[in-house]
Amino acid sequence: MTGSLVIVGTGPGKPELMTPATRAALAQATDLVGYGPYLDRVIPMRDGQVRHASDNRVELDRARHALALAASGRTVAVVSGGDPGVFAMAAAVFEAVEAGDPAWQELDIRVEPGVTAMLAAAAEVGAPLGGDFCAISLSDNLKSWATIERRLTAAAEADFVIALYNPASKARPHQLGEAFALLRQAKGPETLVLLVRAAGTGEARVLSTTLGQVDATQADMRTLVIVGASTTRRVGRWVYTPRGIRP
Amino acid sequence: MTGSLVIVGTGPGKPELMTPATRAALAQATDLVGYGPYLDRVIPMRDGQVRHASDNRVELDRARHALALAASGRTVAVVSGGDPGVFAMAAAVFEAVEAGDPAWQELDIRVEPGVTAMLAAAAEVGAPLGGDFCAISLSDNLKSWATIERRLTAAAEADFVIALYNPASKARPHQLGEAFALLRQAKGPETLVLLVRAAGTGEARVLSTTLGQVDATQADMRTLVIVGASTTRRVGRWVYTPRGIRP
Repeated sequence: MTGSLVIVGTGPGKPELMTPATRAALAQATDLVGYGPYLDRVIPMRDGQVRHASDNRVELDRARHALALAASGRTVAVVSGGDPGVFAMAAAVFEAVEAGDPAWQELDIRVEPGVTAMLAAAAEVGAPLGGDFCAISLSDNLKSWATIERRLTAAAEADFVIALYNPASKARPHQLGEAFALLRQAKGPETLVLLVRAAGTGEARVLSTTLGQVDATQADMRTLVIVGASTTRRVGRWVYTPRGIRP
Repeated sequence: MTGSLVIVGTGPGKPELMTPATRAALAQATDLVGYGPYLDRVIPMRDGQVRHASDNRVELDRARHALALAASGRTVAVVSGGDPGVFAMAAAVFEAVEAGDPAWQELDIRVEPGVTAMLAAAAEVGAPLGGDFCAISLSDNLKSWATIERRLTAAAEADFVIALYNPASKARPHQLGEAFALLRQAKGPETLVLLVRAAGTGEARVLSTTLGQVDATQADMRTLVIVGASTTRRVGRWVYTPRGIRP
């Protein structure tokens, strides 16, 4: 008797932004494993379904626990917010597979895609991701700040629209300001910046400003930051990036 | 009497990957405007709903048509595949708003996020977008090839995972090969490459190879290409990028 493991994302928050495929996977699971607030988004759907809630900082432990449950024959869903493959649980599960029991490589593991935060944030304001873009997590728990600076510099050189995930936390109050300073130097103070809080929850709050004016303390862990390309601009109440660049 | 315009994405193809919010917006529309194959994904949902199908190459005309319909009082949905804000119709609509009738800036326009192709492609193979990443359209209809080369070079410098949209078409048979050659030079021949065709449709085909081995002619317009970061690797049947980089 073999179990299975599916890694899903609940989307940005509103139930209407969770895909039916994810809803079905959650309904089939005997065990849900995830960070408490994401599990709370799952309406109880199956009698006897077991919820294994954990703290946000122990992704690898949570992944190992989920794999062990699946190996014991359970039908397990690992629950992230957003899309599970973008700064979320899917990579942690495969890290745990790589470092863990070789039998885990034979498990039935699949990933269900979802609506990640930058897409929800972009939709709140128009189409700021309309051109080429990049996504960078500002958390330096798992990589050095020097790596993050190198990536911000290259992103400015490419003139990408830049989506910043995990822009700030109590443990890292100064990094977003440093990132803005670096980008202001490289891209100029008129570059548009969007701070989109609680995107896709039904309670979004948008602050539209520039690299010259932005106050980094207005972002928190629920904020997705979008720094425009040189072509990103306002039209009416919206912000968008044109698809092309005139030669 | 004022109309409205919502820009939606049907997701990668499987109905279970279209969000309920998008489904509801489609059900409410009196008029659907979009590229024929995307409209075909919409199950008829409302009596008297009018479908305005058009060719794929006339995004701006389609956007203007949709805005004129909304201004005339219709409830219009502009239908893209994937997420409408990523290399799709949302930016074209705002371009048309900017260049068009000033009254269009007063219209009720909103965007519904969706599951974009790179997320569906990543989910088919594991978690290749597990680290920082970028998305580049290889189409040079609207920007110069020099711009694309500059962005590929910067993306290699940043060690981003790189998602390539619109990798090839009959009109542009050689560009993907040129992009691979540039990236091979910058990142080395062992770098993993994934060609994921028809991701998220239920009929996906994955080719997992390297920059040294890849054959660009195996990609077409239905293929999403993912070029790994230096840390992207295989584990069992999957490919993933670890969340961090050890210092």
